[in-house]
Order: sequence, then C-alpha cells, then structure tokens
Amino acid sequence: MIYFDNAATSFPKPSAVYSEISRCLDKYCGNPGRSDHKLSIDAARKIYSCREKLADLYGFSHPEAITFTYNATYALNMALKARIKKGCHVLISDIEHNAVLRPIHKLAEDGLISYSIYKSGSKEEVIDSINKLIRPNTSLIVANHYSNITSITLPIDTIADYAAAHGLKLICDASQSSGVYPYRLDTGKISALCAPAHKGLYGIQGVGFIINCDTLSGNTVIEGGGGTNSHDKAMPTFLPDRYEAGTANTPGIAALDTAVDFIKRITVEEIGHKENLLKNRFAEGLGSIKNIRIYGNVLESGGIVSFGHRYHAPSEIGRYLADNNICVRSGYHCSPLAHKTIGSGDGGSVRVSLGYFNTKAEIDKALSILSRYN
Amino acid sequence: MIYFDNAATSFPKPSAVYSEISRCLDKYCGNPGRSDHKLSIDAARKIYSCREKLADLYGFSHPEAITFTYNATYALNMALKARIKKGCHVLISDIEHNAVLRPIHKLAEDGLISYSIYKSGSKEEVIDSINKLIRPNTSLIVANHYSNITSITLPIDTIADYAAAHGLKLICDASQSSGVYPYRLDTGKISALCAPAHKGLYGIQGVGFIINCDTLSGNTVIEGGGGTNSHDKAMPTFLPDRYEAGTANTPGIAALDTAVDFIKRITVEEIGHKENLLKNRFAEGLGSIKNIRIYGNVLESGGIVSFGHRYHAPSEIGRYLADNNICVRSGYHCSPLAHKTIGSGDGGSVRVSLGYFNTKAEIDKALSILSRYN
Repeated sequence: MIYFDNAATSFPKPSAVYSEISRCLDKYCGNPGRSDHKLSIDAARKIYSCREKLADLYGFSHPEAITFTYNATYALNMALKARIKKGCHVLISDIEHNAVLRPIHKLAEDGLISYSIYKSGSKEEVIDSINKLIRPNTSLIVANHYSNITSITLPIDTIADYAAAHGLKLICDASQSSGVYPYRLDTGKISALCAPAHKGLYGIQGVGFIINCDTLSGNTVIEGGGGTNSHDKAMPTFLPDRYEAGTANTPGIAALDTAVDFIKRITVEEIGHKENLLKNRFAEGLGSIKNIRIYGNVLESGGIVSFGHRYHAPSEIGRYLADNNICVRSGYHCSPLAHKTIGSGDGGSVRVSLGYFNTKAEIDKALSILSRYN
Repeated sequence: MIYFDNAATSFPKPSAVYSEISRCLDKYCGNPGRSDHKLSIDAARKIYSCREKLADLYGFSHPEAITFTYNATYALNMALKARIKKGCHVLISDIEHNAVLRPIHKLAEDGLISYSIYKSGSKEEVIDSINKLIRPNTSLIVANHYSNITSITLPIDTIADYAAAHGLKLICDASQSSGVYPYRLDTGKISALCAPAHKGLYGIQGVGFIINCDTLSGNTVIEGGGGTNSHDKAMPTFLPDRYEAGTANTPGIAALDTAVDFIKRITVEEIGHKENLLKNRFAEGLGSIKNIRIYGNVLESGGIVSFGHRYHAPSEIGRYLADNNICVRSGYHCSPLAHKTIGSGDGGSVRVSLGYFNTKAEIDKALSILSRYN
C-alpha cells in the first residue's frame, strides 16, 4: 500500500508513538490532575510535559497557555469565539477550510459579526486585498497558513506584521503547516495558533490544540469541571483551565508528547524539506502525463499536489488509485473556498498529500500507475 | 495497587480494548469517511459499528442520532445548547456536576436563560420540588441520573414521565450510570442522554457521546467540515453530521466499540449488581470504623461511597490511602452542588468508586488499611 493521504491524517506514525500509547494505557492512564494517586498524577505530568514540548517546538514561552481540544476544528472554533466581540468585522482568506468558514458564517448568520474574504497570493497581493477590505470595526484576521488542497501558502509573517501594526488579532490555522514550518511564536504577532495532533505532528486522532499566544482569557464555548476552583460556578480565568473542561484525552496527548520528540529529532526543517522534494518530484512527473491538470502553484511549500483529469472526475481517479492500492483523497476536502480559488470548484480535485515516511520509489510507482490511466 | 477511582476513569480496561486500539492504529486508522481508500472506509465502518452497538445497548433505534464528542462535558454542553432558546427556564437537580452547572450558569450570566435547582430525594420529593419550581417558560429539565460522589440517584423514569406529560425536554447525564443501568431510550421520554466512553463503559479517554433521542437538529456550538455537503456554508441539518465537526477520534471510538461488546457479554445488569454488592460490603465495613462518617444514602444503586473523618481532612485520608497503594479521589469531584446537598460542602469527601474488576479481597484489604488510620 502507498499512503498519500497525510493531509487527512498521517500514516504510519513513528513506532515510539504506538508503544507510548500502550505504556500510557497500562501505566499512567488515571484521570489527569483529579486525584492524589500515582496514575492520576503521572497522567497530569505527561500532559504538562506535552504542553512544554509543544511550546518549545513552536518557539513559545508559555506552556500553560496551550489548551488541548478534540481536534483542530474544535481548536479553531474555540480560538475564534474567544476573540470576537458582537459587531466586529473579521477577515478570512480565500483558502480557509470549512473549520473556519462555517463557524464564521454561523456567527454572521446569528448577527454577531460581519466578515470579508481576502485574496491569497504574493505578499503584496495579500496586503493589497486586506487593505481594500479593512473596516474601522475589523478586529480579527484568520489565516490558513498552508492550504489543505494545494501548495498555496499565505505569507504569515507579512500578515502578522500587518495585524500587529493595525492592532488586530491574528489566528493562524496551522493544520497543514505544523511539523513542517518552523514557528517562532514569541514574537507575539500571532494571537492564537491551532493545529491537530494527527497530521504533520504524527500524533493520533482525538487531539487538537490552541496555542493562546496572547494568553487571552476570552469567551468560552464549553464549560465544565477541570479539577480547579470547583466551588466557582464560572470557568477559571487562568489558562489552560479556562478552555479545558472535562477529562482530557490522556493517551492521545501522551502519543503527541512522544510524536513531538520524533519531530524535534528529525527537525521541522528536514521534514518540510523532504516532503517538498517528494512533492516536486511528483508534480514534475505529473506534468508529463497527458490530460492531467495540476491546480495551484506547485512551487510553494508543503507536500500537497491537487490535480484533475480532462476527461475523468476526481472520484474516478481516486477510485482507480485505490484499486491499485494507492491512498489519496478526491473531492472538495472540506475546502470549497479554496477549490473556487484554484479553479476546481465544480468537481474538486484529486489530492496527493505526502508525509515524512513516503519515498521516491512510491512517487515513481504512483506516477507509473497514473500514466496508465485512460 | 488497588484502584478505587473508577468514577474518575475506569482502570483497567478489558484486554480486548487494548488490542483493538493497536489493531486500529495499525490497520484502519485513516480519516473516517473522507476518502475512497481502505484505511478511510474501514475507519468510517468502525465508527458506524460503534453507533449501532451503542444504540442497541441503550435500547434506541436510531444509531445515526448518536454523535461523538471529546468527553461527556462536551456532550452535555452541546446537548444543552442545542435545546435551549433565549428566555427559557431550565430545571437542574441539586446533584448536578459542574459539567451541567457551569454551562447553565454561563447561559444565565449571558442573559439567555434562567434556571432553578430542584431537590433530589424520593420520587415524590423530586416531583414536589419540580412542581414548586416550574414556570410557564420552563422548557428543559436536566437530571444527573447517578451522582458522581455518592450512591444518590434521581428517579429518572418518574422525571421522564413528568417531562413527557408537561411537554418538557429532558437531558440525562448518564456519566456514572452508563454501563450499570439498563436504559430503554425508545420510549422517547428522554430527549438526549450524554456519557463518556472511559468510565463505566470501559472505553478510553478522549471520547464522549450524545444520544439525541429526539433527533433534534438544534443549535450548534462547534461548526466545521464533516466530509458531507462541503459546499454548504452551514452545518448539515441531518444527524450525526450536524454535531460532528472535524476529524473523529477513530482509535478511541474503536476502543469503545470493543468495550461495548464486553459490556453486552457480561450484561449491564450483572456489572451493576457486582459493583453494588462490592459497594455495600465496603460501606458496611466502613460503618464500623470509628470517626468515619458516610455521606448520602449508601443503599441506592451504583458503586460509589463518599465519606469523611471526624478529625482529618479528606485530602489527608486520600494521601494516606495513596501511600498504601490504594487509589481514591478526595475533594469536591467537580460537584460542589452535590457536596452541599449531602452535607460535605466545606471540605469535600473521600470517594471510593468501584468497577467491575474490583474484588471482595480488595475491599477487605482497603477496610483493614483504613481501620489503622489515626
């Protein structure tokens, strides 16, 4: 089997991740931070260890301001809803995922906010688009750093400088860039960064997180017990407790803790470089297969290529590849905005998304199989 | 080690649960329902299998109306917020967990609802209390079926009959009763039931669920992609998609799927009976240890006993037991309301919570160790 669906969820994981999950379930899977006994204390320690490692990975000095969630969609919802105020105007890019578009649309439908969509492109094009859309009540920009359907990226540092200069909050959706882009969040120009554990960080499904770089004690969407200030009917005002209600996913966070060790050992730069080389090899080969059309700019960062076929629907190609034991994802990838932006809004695309464990031989084999497709 | 902290999280799990997690991560941990390849399709099948098994376990005919969440707190928040309307009045019991009290308090602080607290007790006392508090705009009752700190239970069938007769929605917090109480939800008198996977159902942390018995397409608190209707900016109106945004926790749901097999094999009745017998044995022994005070009615259902000491704080006893390799939880257990109700509001209690894997020998050993405490 050739697995090219790493943007949906990475596979396989580093072997140490699998063994740590087993060790956690066997040795330290109490309810973290709730009780005085070893299983509970060790679970809490592991979760704090993961906060510290993530903070270090993202160049951020406040591990306590990292909150764990169910997935990146929950993280984005919670980060957004903590940072909007009634009547404010929000700017989102034209490559946002439905994890941003849908909550923003809901807030607008509910009459709480208004929003505009700025264009992706070069630094100048992005800033020009934002400048044309900004209003006196604009308070927040959302930026999907790396698209989940192509190699299109947003110039995050430029947007961050702009946000800082204009007193705007900036939420970065790092779902695809995490594990391949070297963030340094201590500059303070990004207000919150959201990501899942199970994609480029090589953790497992069931965990996402928010790095609350602005350490904001904002509005909550989920309230409940956290083992602290139990007598208070309101959520604690301090982080991470404010945004973490109910029992955490200890085995999932333990897996992420070990996965981050793997990332740090290989380095984000090396993983990003490898995926990019593989992506370029695939895109180059794809370019010489007749009737194939590549969407978006393949020369940018990341390990994703989206393409279509002149005569066949993406789902047909996806099925053909699946029949040949090659795992890709076809369709809209929960990103109708981005598909409209790259010109594949009618039928979506076939997406090949590469990971650290892919090889040149797999690329070449997939190209050979694709070249035989009629 | 003797583990008596099953109300926080059960330990250990059935061995088949551990092996299924490994099998899932190895064989079918694609992103469920997103792609055409085997890893993704098999993940989606496993998740649907778990919905079907849960539906069967709870006597409910609509597996598609079960939605998975991060934990029971998220489930309760989402179930509540889907079923309240601005200006409505909500009744919650005096044994609710902060997973209910805090979101209800937040909704009240935000000016969206008002709420009153009805008394636990006999069927007559509960209905009498509700009758005194009900208002023309009361639309929802919340009932924590089994308390998480004592053996106090609420007469759920009586409350359900009352709710049905008065046209009220009823949300059942089944966090402690799941796996030990034989629900038959097809009567339609409970609107939604919420529970975690990792307590009495013997799944792992990171999964909770809502059984939306009324199949309501209500308000959402989290929006995002779900692999369906991608071009629609609003969440789908059908279940489970309406309440499930972003990638599901496939390994956690696979664990629950296997755990439910275990529950069905032993039967809910047998597990409940065993825990109750163990609880009674523990409570009886505790009654003869001097300076110990048991809180609440130990004769009711469930496997929980809360107690205090005349001269020592609960945390001291918890520490003493931990030093003797006995895992319990002391303090408030995120349930200040319930502690006030049972008269332990000042310092909380020591909670012993039993599970299917506990034994009489463990009970007797713990009693012996406790009897030596000064």
